[in-house]
Amino acid sequence: MSQSPALDNVLTHIDANLDASLERLFALLRIKSISADPAFAQDCRDAAEHLASDLASFGFKAEVRPTKGHPAIVAHHSGNTGSRPHVLFYGHYDVQPVDPLELWHRPPFEPAIAKHADGRDIIVARGAEDDKGQLMTFVEACRAFVEVNGALPIDVSVLIEGEEEIGSLNFGDFLKQHKADLAADFVLVCDTGMWDRNTPAITTSLRGLVYDEVRITAANRDLHSGLYGGAAQNPIRVLTHILGRLHDDNGHITIPGFYDGVKDLPADILAQWKALPFTPESFLKPIGLSIPAGETDRLMIEQALSRPTCDINGIVGGYTGEGSKTVIPSHASAKVSFRLVEGQDPEKIRDAFRAFVTDQLPKDCTASFINHAGAPAISLDWHMKPLAAAKRALTAEWDREALLIGCGASIPIVADFKSTLGLDSVLIGFGLEDDNIHSPNEKYDLKSFHKGMRSWARILAEFSKPAAA
Amino acid sequence: MSQSPALDNVLTHIDANLDASLERLFALLRIKSISADPAFAQDCRDAAEHLASDLASFGFKAEVRPTKGHPAIVAHHSGNTGSRPHVLFYGHYDVQPVDPLELWHRPPFEPAIAKHADGRDIIVARGAEDDKGQLMTFVEACRAFVEVNGALPIDVSVLIEGEEEIGSLNFGDFLKQHKADLAADFVLVCDTGMWDRNTPAITTSLRGLVYDEVRITAANRDLHSGLYGGAAQNPIRVLTHILGRLHDDNGHITIPGFYDGVKDLPADILAQWKALPFTPESFLKPIGLSIPAGETDRLMIEQALSRPTCDINGIVGGYTGEGSKTVIPSHASAKVSFRLVEGQDPEKIRDAFRAFVTDQLPKDCTASFINHAGAPAISLDWHMKPLAAAKRALTAEWDREALLIGCGASIPIVADFKSTLGLDSVLIGFGLEDDNIHSPNEKYDLKSFHKGMRSWARILAEFSKPAAA
Repeated sequence: MSQSPALDNVLTHIDANLDASLERLFALLRIKSISADPAFAQDCRDAAEHLASDLASFGFKAEVRPTKGHPAIVAHHSGNTGSRPHVLFYGHYDVQPVDPLELWHRPPFEPAIAKHADGRDIIVARGAEDDKGQLMTFVEACRAFVEVNGALPIDVSVLIEGEEEIGSLNFGDFLKQHKADLAADFVLVCDTGMWDRNTPAITTSLRGLVYDEVRITAANRDLHSGLYGGAAQNPIRVLTHILGRLHDDNGHITIPGFYDGVKDLPADILAQWKALPFTPESFLKPIGLSIPAGETDRLMIEQALSRPTCDINGIVGGYTGEGSKTVIPSHASAKVSFRLVEGQDPEKIRDAFRAFVTDQLPKDCTASFINHAGAPAISLDWHMKPLAAAKRALTAEWDREALLIGCGASIPIVADFKSTLGLDSVLIGFGLEDDNIHSPNEKYDLKSFHKGMRSWARILAEFSKPAAA
Repeated sequence: MSQSPALDNVLTHIDANLDASLERLFALLRIKSISADPAFAQDCRDAAEHLASDLASFGFKAEVRPTKGHPAIVAHHSGNTGSRPHVLFYGHYDVQPVDPLELWHRPPFEPAIAKHADGRDIIVARGAEDDKGQLMTFVEACRAFVEVNGALPIDVSVLIEGEEEIGSLNFGDFLKQHKADLAADFVLVCDTGMWDRNTPAITTSLRGLVYDEVRITAANRDLHSGLYGGAAQNPIRVLTHILGRLHDDNGHITIPGFYDGVKDLPADILAQWKALPFTPESFLKPIGLSIPAGETDRLMIEQALSRPTCDINGIVGGYTGEGSKTVIPSHASAKVSFRLVEGQDPEKIRDAFRAFVTDQLPKDCTASFINHAGAPAISLDWHMKPLAAAKRALTAEWDREALLIGCGASIPIVADFKSTLGLDSVLIGFGLEDDNIHSPNEKYDLKSFHKGMRSWARILAEFSKPAAA
């Protein structure tokens, strides 16, 4: 692929300034912007202010804007002589909680470069990948362009939110409110992964998400199991009885109507997937497992990417400290989430789950629910123009053909970009399966960060070519 | 019943000194002797030292003696002129944890007299009943005898442990070690309840207890449910699947062999029980329930007193904080206890439970277990002599015939008194069903405390009569 001298200079600048880029990433990683826990609300505000001033430091007009929850950042940078297209970059500064803290090898908010067991250099911290590391690949690529050429090759707007890890609850409203200020030709999202360590990927489908919390209440107070055991209903018994029936022996989800509207993969895609090197050996063995846990009549790659799923993400009730306590608690609760595929309506699934619970509830018990998130699955247009341009750029940087893949995870906001802003999204990221996102010891390969910056520089340059977008 | 002037004076002294007795009880209640939590180990030692010096202050030769866990107290007081019988009184100074703290109406370790909603005077604090309030009824009765008569009417030894709420794990060994120093004719245990507010009771059968903790481990780290959901096994799903099958739809426990050796009640006892005013209205309505949750083919009184049961006392796994986290945890665990009846062997039940879990475990998962307690059920001899004497004394104090009843709870140490010391136990207590033991806002009726002291004074006097023991 032919390459402009301007891009060459930008890539050389990125290589020469890697340490400075890392230092700016570390400054962001040190901020404890855990969106799920109200104790860290000020840290979330700090992260937003920090990013806005970082963007402003090389020419973005950047503002921190309030939402009903944690604030978002909107920033604009005009490209060279009003050049087209205009892209809207999306990322999120909030991170997952860090518990269980005792499993971290070093404090989660003290980022450092470390050596992976296999010799790779890795950046270790909560958010190192998801999504601070990823979003900074784009921000630093923009900075390099400005520092080398004095300008960006196209118009760039940046939109960074602080509630992605808690379901982007207030972000739909935010988009509606700021619609006029978020005009662009398409969205770039950096919150996904590569196919493997050497093969870049563009994600073209995402599963949807319904996340619900259920609380079962029985007696009006905690009881002594010696006096009341047997005669009094136990809400943990009720909860395990119900949740323990969410899956049948073949791994199918038993909620009535759950699979309504779910389509089988087209035969040609299924044939392609069968040929991919995606096996229990490659996917499950690294996490200590060997047997796919989903529907027994489906390929593992279908279970992970194209089939809807149900997981209990948390459960708690009664005495959970050290030792023993002979208590029958008054209540018990669980957090349950569903990954949805095309054809499933999030609100119907939520209603069906709640009916599944209440239909099995003993007369003496009550159930209450909290809606934590809901978003439909997304299928992107495989033929949109920017996809081809981005694919060319990624293929050039990684010297290996970029794949178009599906992703099992959800980025609910992508649906809102389409419905509210009328924009398609191009999802490109440099995460790897062993990044431990949402887990202790989250990491991001130094190579992902470095070549991620270079990839975005190439993508921006590619978009600026007349035929690209 | 004829009554000696000496006893009359003791009862009058108890009435006149109620405030001082309460103040000594409050001093004990202020000590945070939570045995389950290692953070309170020093408080447990403090409680032991406090009780030993309280007993010594009116003539007991009292010693704090170490165990492998929290220490115990052994104290001796010779009665009037070597009089017989010699009783060994048992109680425990340790208390249950206080969580959830936010449900307490006042701090659990700041005891106070309060008004119950129905006007009764109550003592409110963790341990107000179980077992500090109860054991102090006996200690204060002894003090009154010594203060009035200069001596006790019989020989009394006192044995108070600090690990009853965590299964008396080290107390069996302690008994063996100190056997020579614990010689007596029989044991008095004050850790049970009355039949109702006006009717005293002696407990003649106790259910046994097996308390086990199970931990299911799947992946070697926490996973993101978007990337791994569907394909990776979820230990909460496995745990709820297994525990949710402990009971069938008729409330029977499904563990193979669980009911082996369990006998039906004799027809005459069952007929007596059927006649008792023990109904869902009287027993369940006060705790906000209405339908007996046990075996549907059994009376509620059988479910509560004579049938074996299974309860999940605690469960925890994954994210349990505020909000949501799309995690598949590496492990999940639960605390499960069984109340046993005559004919069930605790170790066989524990083995059967563990086999029930491991037999249903997916190949990819492992289960580990912690043994928290195990004790067989107890049936006492309804014809032992001290029972009749105690019954006479209680009937005199409460002006209502004392009942001989079964109890659904377990006091494992009673089996050890028989096997190690060769002693029968007489179980008398003044607790009420609404005392909230093991729950927030534990209380003890002031009447229970006051008339409890008077009851013990009468019982000691009755035991000192030539025909009593």
